[in-house]
Amino acid sequence: MLPIYAQVPQCELCNTTGGELVWRNADLRVIMVNDPHFVGFVRVVWHEHVAEMTNLTPAQRHMLLDVVFTVEQVMRDVLSPTKINLASLGNMTPHLHWHVIPRFATDVNFPNPVWALTQTQAAQTAQPCVSKAQYDTLVNALRIALWA
Amino acid sequence: MLPIYAQVPQCELCNTTGGELVWRNADLRVIMVNDPHFVGFVRVVWHEHVAEMTNLTPAQRHMLLDVVFTVEQVMRDVLSPTKINLASLGNMTPHLHWHVIPRFATDVNFPNPVWALTQTQAAQTAQPCVSKAQYDTLVNALRIALWA
Repeated sequence: MLPIYAQVPQCELCNTTGGELVWRNADLRVIMVNDPHFVGFVRVVWHEHVAEMTNLTPAQRHMLLDVVFTVEQVMRDVLSPTKINLASLGNMTPHLHWHVIPRFATDVNFPNPVWALTQTQAAQTAQPCVSKAQYDTLVNALRIALWA
Repeated sequence: MLPIYAQVPQCELCNTTGGELVWRNADLRVIMVNDPHFVGFVRVVWHEHVAEMTNLTPAQRHMLLDVVFTVEQVMRDVLSPTKINLASLGNMTPHLHWHVIPRFATDVNFPNPVWALTQTQAAQTAQPCVSKAQYDTLVNALRIALWA
């Protein structure tokens, strides 16, 4: 529980960090999602409870997206994924957050979006597209790049 | 066939406009996808065949996203959707493009992402979340806002 986020009582991203905290500033935080099928999945979460990018000022949008692109660049440098997937959806949790997902030709659902994972696919043992050592390197490299 | 895009022979977005052209400038185009289940679905397509946002310069990224957010704002103004979904995936077509999707609590797959649509859902008659008149208003309003 991080009361600083607690603007809307029933909102998960107002009441929890949402994952393993990598970095934060006054406006947003970067977290590791720890999805076993998509290791290295990062979210960038705006602290304030707003639904859409156009609820932010242009300067806030650019700042948020510059963080998203720093994450993307570090992810590419460390993991060399087949593709980066970026998305801001929020249909279930309308609290602004960006998904930054490293995708690999060998992952459980490539080339489909991670959200199209079937139960059969989800039940498969996760393929080791990202090793524990790569994961640790990613988290450290994100912290270094974001503090820079 | 628009040869200006034709950099990679087998790439759909290098060889076709990709949908109904709404607006273009020297670097990108805005198209209507015309998905019967998600009427009003817009894509913003970078002309050059690059895969990732971090292949662009920061100024190019900001320009591209400013167009995405203009589309989002017009979509909100005209359609008042429940939520806007934004995504840059490109696993199947690694040619940079953004999905801007108006979502409605009554659409065929809400609150799931559009990519998680099952065959059973897809076979349903599309719900009239967006009328023909609203669609025409959207396209006109997009052209006005993007030319501004």
